[in-house]
Amino acid sequence: MLLSPMEKAGILVEALPYIKKFYGKTVVIKYGGHAMLNCELKKAVLTDAVLMKYVGMHPVIVHGGGPDITGMLKKVGKESNFVGGLRVTDDETMEIAQMVLVGKINKDIVSMINDIGGSAVGLSGKDGNLLVADKKLGRVRSPEGQDELVDIGHVGEVRQVNPGILTTVIREGYIPVVAPVAVGEGGVSYNVNADSAAGALAVALNADKLIILTDVEGILADRNDKDSLISTVKMDEVPNLIERRILEDGMIPKVECCVSALRGGVSTTHILDGRVPHSVLLEVFTDRGVGTMVIK
Amino acid sequence: MLLSPMEKAGILVEALPYIKKFYGKTVVIKYGGHAMLNCELKKAVLTDAVLMKYVGMHPVIVHGGGPDITGMLKKVGKESNFVGGLRVTDDETMEIAQMVLVGKINKDIVSMINDIGGSAVGLSGKDGNLLVADKKLGRVRSPEGQDELVDIGHVGEVRQVNPGILTTVIREGYIPVVAPVAVGEGGVSYNVNADSAAGALAVALNADKLIILTDVEGILADRNDKDSLISTVKMDEVPNLIERRILEDGMIPKVECCVSALRGGVSTTHILDGRVPHSVLLEVFTDRGVGTMVIK
Amino acid sequence: MLLSPMEKAGILVEALPYIKKFYGKTVVIKYGGHAMLNCELKKAVLTDAVLMKYVGMHPVIVHGGGPDITGMLKKVGKESNFVGGLRVTDDETMEIAQMVLVGKINKDIVSMINDIGGSAVGLSGKDGNLLVADKKLGRVRSPEGQDELVDIGHVGEVRQVNPGILTTVIREGYIPVVAPVAVGEGGVSYNVNADSAAGALAVALNADKLIILTDVEGILADRNDKDSLISTVKMDEVPNLIERRILEDGMIPKVECCVSALRGGVSTTHILDGRVPHSVLLEVFTDRGVGTMVIK
Amino acid sequence: MLLSPMEKAGILVEALPYIKKFYGKTVVIKYGGHAMLNCELKKAVLTDAVLMKYVGMHPVIVHGGGPDITGMLKKVGKESNFVGGLRVTDDETMEIAQMVLVGKINKDIVSMINDIGGSAVGLSGKDGNLLVADKKLGRVRSPEGQDELVDIGHVGEVRQVNPGILTTVIREGYIPVVAPVAVGEGGVSYNVNADSAAGALAVALNADKLIILTDVEGILADRNDKDSLISTVKMDEVPNLIERRILEDGMIPKVECCVSALRGGVSTTHILDGRVPHSVLLEVFTDRGVGTMVIK
Amino acid sequence: MLLSPMEKAGILVEALPYIKKFYGKTVVIKYGGHAMLNCELKKAVLTDAVLMKYVGMHPVIVHGGGPDITGMLKKVGKESNFVGGLRVTDDETMEIAQMVLVGKINKDIVSMINDIGGSAVGLSGKDGNLLVADKKLGRVRSPEGQDELVDIGHVGEVRQVNPGILTTVIREGYIPVVAPVAVGEGGVSYNVNADSAAGALAVALNADKLIILTDVEGILADRNDKDSLISTVKMDEVPNLIERRILEDGMIPKVECCVSALRGGVSTTHILDGRVPHSVLLEVFTDRGVGTMVIK
Amino acid sequence: MLLSPMEKAGILVEALPYIKKFYGKTVVIKYGGHAMLNCELKKAVLTDAVLMKYVGMHPVIVHGGGPDITGMLKKVGKESNFVGGLRVTDDETMEIAQMVLVGKINKDIVSMINDIGGSAVGLSGKDGNLLVADKKLGRVRSPEGQDELVDIGHVGEVRQVNPGILTTVIREGYIPVVAPVAVGEGGVSYNVNADSAAGALAVALNADKLIILTDVEGILADRNDKDSLISTVKMDEVPNLIERRILEDGMIPKVECCVSALRGGVSTTHILDGRVPHSVLLEVFTDRGVGTMVIK
Repeated sequence: MLLSPMEKAGILVEALPYIKKFYGKTVVIKYGGHAMLNCELKKAVLTDAVLMKYVGMHPVIVHGGGPDITGMLKKVGKESNFVGGLRVTDDETMEIAQMVLVGKINKDIVSMINDIGGSAVGLSGKDGNLLVADKKLGRVRSPEGQDELVDIGHVGEVRQVNPGILTTVIREGYIPVVAPVAVGEGGVSYNVNADSAAGALAVALNADKLIILTDVEGILADRNDKDSLISTVKMDEVPNLIERRILEDGMIPKVECCVSALRGGVSTTHILDGRVPHSVLLEVFTDRGVGTMVIK
Repeated sequence: MLLSPMEKAGILVEALPYIKKFYGKTVVIKYGGHAMLNCELKKAVLTDAVLMKYVGMHPVIVHGGGPDITGMLKKVGKESNFVGGLRVTDDETMEIAQMVLVGKINKDIVSMINDIGGSAVGLSGKDGNLLVADKKLGRVRSPEGQDELVDIGHVGEVRQVNPGILTTVIREGYIPVVAPVAVGEGGVSYNVNADSAAGALAVALNADKLIILTDVEGILADRNDKDSLISTVKMDEVPNLIERRILEDGMIPKVECCVSALRGGVSTTHILDGRVPHSVLLEVFTDRGVGTMVIK
Repeated sequence: MLLSPMEKAGILVEALPYIKKFYGKTVVIKYGGHAMLNCELKKAVLTDAVLMKYVGMHPVIVHGGGPDITGMLKKVGKESNFVGGLRVTDDETMEIAQMVLVGKINKDIVSMINDIGGSAVGLSGKDGNLLVADKKLGRVRSPEGQDELVDIGHVGEVRQVNPGILTTVIREGYIPVVAPVAVGEGGVSYNVNADSAAGALAVALNADKLIILTDVEGILADRNDKDSLISTVKMDEVPNLIERRILEDGMIPKVECCVSALRGGVSTTHILDGRVPHSVLLEVFTDRGVGTMVIK
Repeated sequence: MLLSPMEKAGILVEALPYIKKFYGKTVVIKYGGHAMLNCELKKAVLTDAVLMKYVGMHPVIVHGGGPDITGMLKKVGKESNFVGGLRVTDDETMEIAQMVLVGKINKDIVSMINDIGGSAVGLSGKDGNLLVADKKLGRVRSPEGQDELVDIGHVGEVRQVNPGILTTVIREGYIPVVAPVAVGEGGVSYNVNADSAAGALAVALNADKLIILTDVEGILADRNDKDSLISTVKMDEVPNLIERRILEDGMIPKVECCVSALRGGVSTTHILDGRVPHSVLLEVFTDRGVGTMVIK
Repeated sequence: MLLSPMEKAGILVEALPYIKKFYGKTVVIKYGGHAMLNCELKKAVLTDAVLMKYVGMHPVIVHGGGPDITGMLKKVGKESNFVGGLRVTDDETMEIAQMVLVGKINKDIVSMINDIGGSAVGLSGKDGNLLVADKKLGRVRSPEGQDELVDIGHVGEVRQVNPGILTTVIREGYIPVVAPVAVGEGGVSYNVNADSAAGALAVALNADKLIILTDVEGILADRNDKDSLISTVKMDEVPNLIERRILEDGMIPKVECCVSALRGGVSTTHILDGRVPHSVLLEVFTDRGVGTMVIK
Repeated sequence: MLLSPMEKAGILVEALPYIKKFYGKTVVIKYGGHAMLNCELKKAVLTDAVLMKYVGMHPVIVHGGGPDITGMLKKVGKESNFVGGLRVTDDETMEIAQMVLVGKINKDIVSMINDIGGSAVGLSGKDGNLLVADKKLGRVRSPEGQDELVDIGHVGEVRQVNPGILTTVIREGYIPVVAPVAVGEGGVSYNVNADSAAGALAVALNADKLIILTDVEGILADRNDKDSLISTVKMDEVPNLIERRILEDGMIPKVECCVSALRGGVSTTHILDGRVPHSVLLEVFTDRGVGTMVIK
């Protein structure tokens, strides 16, 4: 489609109210799934972040890294066991996971942002003790049919956020990119869930928005009907949605992250379809968001 | 034309390189002519300024006011005489001119910017001695065919700029709107040419761009052919353009303002068609400007 | 009278305790009446303000403009109607009033201050949305003898003060001069009472003093006896003074401005005789004030 | 003489141009002689300094202390020898001198300033290594009629000024009071001439004025005629004045201090009659100074 | 003993936890007794202070001066009377005391610190009205066996601390050295107890530690057994210690100073043996303090 | 060896002159070799850095990572080829190298520093475009005996340093730890020599010292005699040392790094024996360094 310059100007002008509204606000973006694997989508998301920075917002990117970790483990001939959906993370697995998250994915994102024209700084939860975690136990069903807690290694739960280094780099004009590796007692590394890390950072940074990129349209009233997107969910309705099985499986923890962020003071939270190019920009700069907003 | 949200996002993304390029830069906009009379155009120009402010630029607006002054003079039954194109400005005329420029036009612009969502502060050249002028004499042909200089009252030429108050309000996030009334010896008021005032301010503020809004397409190679727009003029070529009568009449002083601003350190200067909505935005945020750029 | 240098020094020294007492304090001066019409008195008031600035105080001047507005309206052949003492202010009247207040009186004051050696910046209530007003209705006695509210056009009442631009220019060393034109919904202009505007600004600026210049000695116990000046009035006594008809007519709203400023946190308020040269200075720098002080 | 309040106001107003002129300027005052002994004069000088501080100037006081030192030495039964006008200062004499200068005179001045309403901080040249001195030798005529240099103990010459502590206390609003005790190699104390110390401090502080209070009218063309005061001396004329014996004895080093300060960048220097109350104020705030000004 | 470089490094490393713990903390050191008389000990104490400053702490030194004052009084043939342990301080005695404290001892300490490599500034309680005192009366037993209060001259009790000048010099990197001379009504000088002054300053500065150097080991459970040192005393135990005569005489007021400082918010207080070289450093940088710590 | 507390204090005091000398200075430490492999030595080096930070210096750590990279490559079954001593670094090798350097070694160092009590932030040359590199070609001997340049992949040479992110984290109190991965055109990763990176950073940060930890005693006059350590080398002597074969092989590039840093403005450079515990501390805080100092 060919737009005249004047039509283009009109669209910039339409964005003005949103630019005003979010000026100086912090937005934490959990970046994962398809948006990380497809090069086009990746560039779109990171361009959105750079644009947000230039118009006065403070985007913070938290990334995951599942498939790459699995790939690398395979490469070194290490098999993965899972307990209740969580990878059993022995020392070697943790080392590999950390290398992939911090040394590969994080730096790729940093490079791409810099290349687009922003200025990014990659951090892990170990830098400046940004993310401090406690060990998290796995839950397994015993032969007697009871839940038992088992040690699954370096899997952690964020207990404390020290946002000093983040606020420093934000204030200096950088876009921080955070890998979900936390530090525990005695400097031990812990893998933490990237959604949870994003939520905890959003609270600690007093962010205005938490955006979680997923590989679905958002919350669908009928999961077989893509037009049944629920555009807004109040946090009080969540239990009912779970009961009615509208929320299931992987979506439940994401929504719970949103609820917990809302309780911690974040203004709005969003579950967006990361497969739509520039979905973050659309959410922030236009009337019609492209996913589900979870609010107080 | 109906754009999908994604197409809109694409256009925002296209603007990114320009947003980056002009981040933190000062742009002085001489605002006059049609763009001041037509309400739609007026809103478009001022929206452009607000948008520029939000994406990190520092727009400064300098306005003229001819027709309104003439209207008011008529209302009070005061006739105007002209000498060499300059209005003979006796005390009463000056008083009326100042009232119209400072008390009407300036405040209308301020109100409209505030209404659009910016925050404007109106100033005259008397505030903080922003514009200091010397008396300018009119040039008249004597019966003997010789040029003679005659006193034409409160017509001045900017001799000095004290930009302190401007930099203060810019730094605090306001958009300054300047009326072309200067102060002379003993606090006397002087009417100064708005183009010249804009040029002098651009130099004093170390501005990146000076934009002069006019009621023509720009500089036309053939004034009868609107498609003959010259998009770029080097300042060295100006004398030749005058000689070849490509530059004539009212355009000459505007181009001379540009040249003088370039000599004073302004990076680029622009003569834009104020009748095109959002021409300022187009100039700043797209590849294809809509007028003539005068450069070093 | 010829003073020896040493006698002069003695007088400077006498001022020291007052200079100390008011160091860094904000004083809002409502400037109007005779003090604005007589050139000598005008210079005296503004010199006082400049002197106050130099010895570390922060004077803010709010001016009125009645006679000049009336004069200009006459000039353009516009008659004025009054309802309950308030001028019916249609669009044209408002335009003229604003031009006179903002474009003439305000700039004259600014020029004179700059000429005396201070550095003034003129502002209206529209700049930076300094004064936001609601429409005020006139009160008229119906033929049936009942009070009725009628629309009298652009007459407003200050609802909100955004002092940002004032504190900015004060901090940078300028003396702000404020014209009593406020902004309402949709950028509409409103004429507001200058005494009230001064009072509202004094509260918003957390001023130490509000000084209202008038054309009388102050509050007289017996209005026929100029020696019956009441030098101090406690705000609780005001109702009684009104009942006893010691306060009447035009003095009542001025005293009510003072009371309202006191309630808003201003330390002391003063009704001074603007016909006495340097009455502001005398109030501030000597033991014997020259008017009536209204206090908590 | 009884002045009306209005007359008093007039005098304050007269001071305005001087207040403007010296706003933010540093003035070093060498305070000594009669002005230190007479309680009235003392209060007048220090009141002048406090007033200067309040109207935005930065006075720095450097005091001497001759008579008090002599008195204390007598009290402890210590005789003084002089070589070429300089007191031979053995260890015990230095200790006594330092105690009197730093522990008595300095603190008396500090107390009096605080009592008048300023806020003073007393310092010696040892604090923050403010004044670093080299040993100065005495000059004595040998029996053979030749000049010989002899060790006269703790007599020093300022070699270096570290103004850090002074600028700190000035910036924080204090009036510094400096005792002329310097520090040499290994922390040894040195008595330094107070006039020279004042001059060196004026240069190091980039002061606008150096004022030396003396017990004479200034430089007299005819020392027997008190009306023959030379109000201005250019530094180039000094050698000629010495030759013509208009400058003699004790006045020569004072004038040389002035010349040296002028060479170091001080704008004007003044030799004032400390016996005239408020002579400092008169010099600074009125047209007619009361002494001799030495200028470039 | 000869240490290898590596052994030395080890000791520096051992100090690290203490350096971390006290980083940015203020420590008020009351310096007196033997530590002031013996040159070696003096250098050790002041070196400790300089070292503390370099590793990020803010030491403040308050000194006494008894023996030197007595010596000087003797020199001028002035006898001292004591009432209830307090010196009757007439005007002359006060003058001498102030000269010795401020003009001699204080400046000796300043010089020595500067010589060691720190940067000290000496202050008295008169500078910036640092210490404001009320008159303190002496208590004398009448012939009838009753306690009577008698005027003992310039003996004062600290009533108010204005720490402005201290915080200024601390922030600028200087080590302040304070002489215990306070100012009272009308600028009168008062001798105040140095322990009390140190305590009052510690409270006003919100210090972390108050250290009082004495000439004993600390608090001994059995005063004849130097090995019976009580290393920690809770402030609640103090009355009991007094009752059991473990605390007697001169130690009681020192402990009361500590208790009062603790009540004012100081974290820990210490009574150290000033006869042990570097006792301050040992207290701060090693596990084993060398005296008695009084805590909440 | 058991030291008394007092002996310990003595050693702290001995360090004072060095603490003073290096206060506020930046020291870049190239950390590699044995000091990285042995856990005791690692802790010693990092403790030295933390201690330096606490006493006011600004240490910056640049680490290498050879053996770990080789190990990881072996694990994934990737063989390494070398050309002229440089590893041929194809895409996969680069990815592994970056993961090990940035995701493992860097974070291990960060964790250990945080555990010791400092606060570290790990960065790569990609963060904030800290290290920008150009491709470096390998040099190979052709069959004809001539040197030929060959592409050896992601091996780079630092062309530009953008120290912004480093100065930011230093100023905020963090210890930066830098992995030698640089960014080239289009965001491509480059492996850069850690010694060179350290040198380039030292120059860009205007560091006072560059310290290169090695696995030898320093420069030995006779490499078979460990007592023949040359403690100081002037940079002019280096060519002669190379000619005399005192400098050979791996030591030559290290010395050349030093020379290049010296030329760039670094004050002193040091080649230290990383096998000696606390060698950094010894170099900085004692008279006897433990290696060779290369100076201008």
